[in-house]
Amino acid sequence: MRRTAFFISDGTGLTAEALGHSLLAQFEKIDFERVTVPYIDDTEKAHEMVKRINEAAETDGARPLVFDTIVNSDIRDVIAGGDGFMVDIFGTFLNPLEQELQSSSSYSVGKSHAINNAGRYERRIDAVNFALDNDDGARTRHYDEADLILVGASRSGKTPTCLYLALQYGVKAANYPITEEDLDDQSVPAALRPHKQKLFGLTIDPERLATIRNERRPNSRYSSIKQCMLEIEEIELMYRRERIPYLNTTAYSIEEISTRIMVTTGLKRNR
Amino acid sequence: MRRTAFFISDGTGLTAEALGHSLLAQFEKIDFERVTVPYIDDTEKAHEMVKRINEAAETDGARPLVFDTIVNSDIRDVIAGGDGFMVDIFGTFLNPLEQELQSSSSYSVGKSHAINNAGRYERRIDAVNFALDNDDGARTRHYDEADLILVGASRSGKTPTCLYLALQYGVKAANYPITEEDLDDQSVPAALRPHKQKLFGLTIDPERLATIRNERRPNSRYSSIKQCMLEIEEIELMYRRERIPYLNTTAYSIEEISTRIMVTTGLKRNR
Repeated sequence: MRRTAFFISDGTGLTAEALGHSLLAQFEKIDFERVTVPYIDDTEKAHEMVKRINEAAETDGARPLVFDTIVNSDIRDVIAGGDGFMVDIFGTFLNPLEQELQSSSSYSVGKSHAINNAGRYERRIDAVNFALDNDDGARTRHYDEADLILVGASRSGKTPTCLYLALQYGVKAANYPITEEDLDDQSVPAALRPHKQKLFGLTIDPERLATIRNERRPNSRYSSIKQCMLEIEEIELMYRRERIPYLNTTAYSIEEISTRIMVTTGLKRNR
Repeated sequence: MRRTAFFISDGTGLTAEALGHSLLAQFEKIDFERVTVPYIDDTEKAHEMVKRINEAAETDGARPLVFDTIVNSDIRDVIAGGDGFMVDIFGTFLNPLEQELQSSSSYSVGKSHAINNAGRYERRIDAVNFALDNDDGARTRHYDEADLILVGASRSGKTPTCLYLALQYGVKAANYPITEEDLDDQSVPAALRPHKQKLFGLTIDPERLATIRNERRPNSRYSSIKQCMLEIEEIELMYRRERIPYLNTTAYSIEEISTRIMVTTGLKRNR
């Protein structure tokens, strides 16, 4: 069975999409064709949208699901006139919130992902630049400024996690790869010792690590399962001995890894 | 007036937070204290949560707003027993969706940001690595693989946009800085010419560019308003002459820039 799901917004559509995906993830048996349509911000575009909704209804032989975060009720009314099943987020929650807050909505468009606070926005961009400048142990002299230093074997997920922490939370995260040489003296590498309280370790199943490394350097010692097992074993031993909090990333997405790091470390978002 | 708003989830809390922020952005006059609480996945944690909600109610002298995306209705019921004003996303929409889809929800937790499709997830990570490897004109030999090549003056927002496009959409975006030397021959730089159809230009108000550059290299020629005006004027002239689609990023967040690029280019997400 196949159904079309539209995520429609007068802004970027990111909120409608996030909510829609969350709800649809509960219906695993149905094959959804997902379509995000941002910037539906006048009634003319809304009428065009209704045509697309009605075409999908005809093709699928079933009403498309329509998740919308459109602020303007005139535009929303046009969309609701189509053959879709409406999951109308602002229509459902805005009025009860107005009552509860005894305040009227400003009905202003595109607020969710606008730059509402320039200082906070710049901290996110600064955090992205910090992650890039302090990636892969490239420099260690800025670790004083870091909120967090991710450590782990090469290809255990440090860089994407640092970038996500910067973009989503404005957290300044550096990362440092633990190499074989580092493991020889069985303790925290010298460059990291003054910042031990900022360390968070990543680990990963050796089989998965070998697969990932093989994509970069096929059939090398670096990518061999033997080498991966050795590194991961020694690294986990070091984490436990040095009481560095750590997480096995194998089954987790970047979003989950990042959220768990925020919870475990108690770091506050900076945006 | 001050109100606490909780974003509570059995998963990462990213969806509850995105939706809550969207709705609260409509109430500009109220000063919200925003608290995200992920991983409330058993009734014991839910009872702890109720204490926090009730404490906030007492401190604020008003009910906190509670935006939740908890799948399990037993846990949700505990939360609803607190002194909060519930914006209960799954409670509101899941049942009507079950009816419409004639299918029951799997009531499985943490689906929104889980790795549901390993292939798609790896494409996102590959896209992040691609953005890093092809940042700032570092290499041009992989441009065949690129979905998009962002061009623009130094510090006009290319790198954070490429990383966001990778993380959010799985799009492989390279970026290439247009320098003064490139502008001398008044056309597309040689390395970019074979890929002209993949180019998208960023521009930015010269005053804003000078401010950003001054943070990196204060009082330099590079950061002077005169230099910024000159570069931006020539770059915009080149975009128009070469018919490269472009966007002024001054007033836009990374999310907005990225969404507008997706819409303008018609690129399809790869996740």
